[in-house]
Amino acid sequence: MSTMEKIFAGYRERLATLAKSDNPFADGIAWVEGSLTPIHEARIPLLDQGFLHSDLTYDVPSVWDGRFFRLDDHLARLEKSCAKMRLKLPLPKEEIKSILCEMVAKSGIKDAFVELIVTRGLKGVRGTKAEDMTNTLYLWVVPYIWVMEPEMQLAGNGSAIVARTVRRTPPGCMDPTVKNLQWGDLTRGMFEASDRGADYPFLTDGDGNITEGSGFNIVLIKDNTLYTPARGVLEGVTRKSVFDCAKKLGLEVKLDFVPVELVYHCDEMFMCTTAGGVMPITSLDGKNVGDGKVGPITAKIWDVYWGMHYEDEFSFAIDYEVKDKANGVNGNGEVKTNGTNGVAH
Amino acid sequence: MSTMEKIFAGYRERLATLAKSDNPFADGIAWVEGSLTPIHEARIPLLDQGFLHSDLTYDVPSVWDGRFFRLDDHLARLEKSCAKMRLKLPLPKEEIKSILCEMVAKSGIKDAFVELIVTRGLKGVRGTKAEDMTNTLYLWVVPYIWVMEPEMQLAGNGSAIVARTVRRTPPGCMDPTVKNLQWGDLTRGMFEASDRGADYPFLTDGDGNITEGSGFNIVLIKDNTLYTPARGVLEGVTRKSVFDCAKKLGLEVKLDFVPVELVYHCDEMFMCTTAGGVMPITSLDGKNVGDGKVGPITAKIWDVYWGMHYEDEFSFAIDYEVKDKANGVNGNGEVKTNGTNGVAH
Repeated sequence: MSTMEKIFAGYRERLATLAKSDNPFADGIAWVEGSLTPIHEARIPLLDQGFLHSDLTYDVPSVWDGRFFRLDDHLARLEKSCAKMRLKLPLPKEEIKSILCEMVAKSGIKDAFVELIVTRGLKGVRGTKAEDMTNTLYLWVVPYIWVMEPEMQLAGNGSAIVARTVRRTPPGCMDPTVKNLQWGDLTRGMFEASDRGADYPFLTDGDGNITEGSGFNIVLIKDNTLYTPARGVLEGVTRKSVFDCAKKLGLEVKLDFVPVELVYHCDEMFMCTTAGGVMPITSLDGKNVGDGKVGPITAKIWDVYWGMHYEDEFSFAIDYEVKDKANGVNGNGEVKTNGTNGVAH
Repeated sequence: MSTMEKIFAGYRERLATLAKSDNPFADGIAWVEGSLTPIHEARIPLLDQGFLHSDLTYDVPSVWDGRFFRLDDHLARLEKSCAKMRLKLPLPKEEIKSILCEMVAKSGIKDAFVELIVTRGLKGVRGTKAEDMTNTLYLWVVPYIWVMEPEMQLAGNGSAIVARTVRRTPPGCMDPTVKNLQWGDLTRGMFEASDRGADYPFLTDGDGNITEGSGFNIVLIKDNTLYTPARGVLEGVTRKSVFDCAKKLGLEVKLDFVPVELVYHCDEMFMCTTAGGVMPITSLDGKNVGDGKVGPITAKIWDVYWGMHYEDEFSFAIDYEVKDKANGVNGNGEVKTNGTNGVAH
């Protein structure tokens, strides 16, 4: 049994246990204005500028086998993104951290996709100074989401295209290091991929370089060296983990411009993101990448990456017994009832 | 009394009447999932892809002095935008039209900012065909919003800058003719404008041409000719009205690339959008535009534009007596109670 098979077998067992749960938060839990609600009942104000102008930033940590993975890295990046957008983190990082742990514990979810969203709030920026605004925080936790399903990772048949109909929004318009939800270009790319019978789009910068795809960084491997774009992409936390894996494996990493041409001449290729990890791509624009199988270096990185999820240096165990502290306690410690919060449908 | 003074005097009178109203919808009304709610109580699902990936398009018609202005033009553009994004208008245009009229009538608002938003819905596009998704419609009506306040229009002291720190997102990334709420670049521009002591940002395409600003088209006037960008901008309905005004006034319109250089050498300049109309800019990058006063051609266009709001060719009167048909009736004509819809705060 390969490491990949073991990892996925354990995951499927935990998923089966969750499926039997009668916990009202087993499908997911949201924290809105200090109240906790089942994810499908969570609602936000229509007038939130996060909806009305996508004026927000966000981040996505994960929980694997009951352990939060690189949470501090995600919170640090979120704080950096807020600063770049003149947003303030509405709560101290340590408080957010404890609310998140309590949400996960309360839901009983052992493998989780966790999203934190900071929006401008109810007031638009026109005619108002950023420092005079009250920003809003939304937190939600759902069972782990796979940008590439385990079945596809096991089969090693993930396919991608280099998008021809759309290019990645340039940093001069929207800084991609500020994690944002303005996915217009990525959505166009996903449609093109599906139109061309592939699973994932790789977007270029319009100047002959590869950037990133719909929610993932791209890593190419040629002659035992990893190549990934330095500009026009998110500084991925999973990409950071891949760099750690490379170091452990004694592989060189080149963080630089990556010419489109290289994707057609590399030995191996994978995408990486928190929601799916290290995801091998074996077919590009309808042609095999290398021999069309998951490459040996990709496989080694995959194993080291998932191993890190059990190392105290990168993760910590959540105490699933502490379930009630967060419930109904808002940022000011003031108690609210879940009341009608979001029960409108 | 100038036409501008007359128009604003009538508006202020109607606003004073509205301020005295005890109508629960006087501050605004929203239509969510077939139910009507006061605007500040309206809430949408946290999981709506319109929020989670700004996967939506929208449009903004207006009501002036109890008359809907160019509503059919806005609905036609919304339908076009939906098609370009592989979205379907969730209700027939005629039904949307009657719901909007009933919302305005119910609110008693005589001068209104009206927004229609069509989102992808609760399901993301990854791994799903656009045609298999159920898109969502949100409608809301609030008292008229001014991108440039009447006081500033009367004083004629509106100032703008050509943004240096950000450029407009290129059509190759996000098609600007699809009205969208991905305002990251425009928000950066608004911050730069305020940092530089000005009111409005003009964004370039990064290739030496002017595009548009934060929610408005830009029109320059030189030697009795109007210049406005043909590419990389929204095809504004107000811009269309300005073309109609120009025709009436026998002025030539050049719809083409507009080099940045021209903004520094034109005679007059104004911004135009549904939320504010024809808005004169008399100071650019800290220097006077022309003689620093509202130009004679801008003034003529302003008068013709507001006159159009009373012409049957472009507008129709709303029957404020019909108030109850829309209440609690959803798209399927099935009756819902407002229930707890959005009453969470």
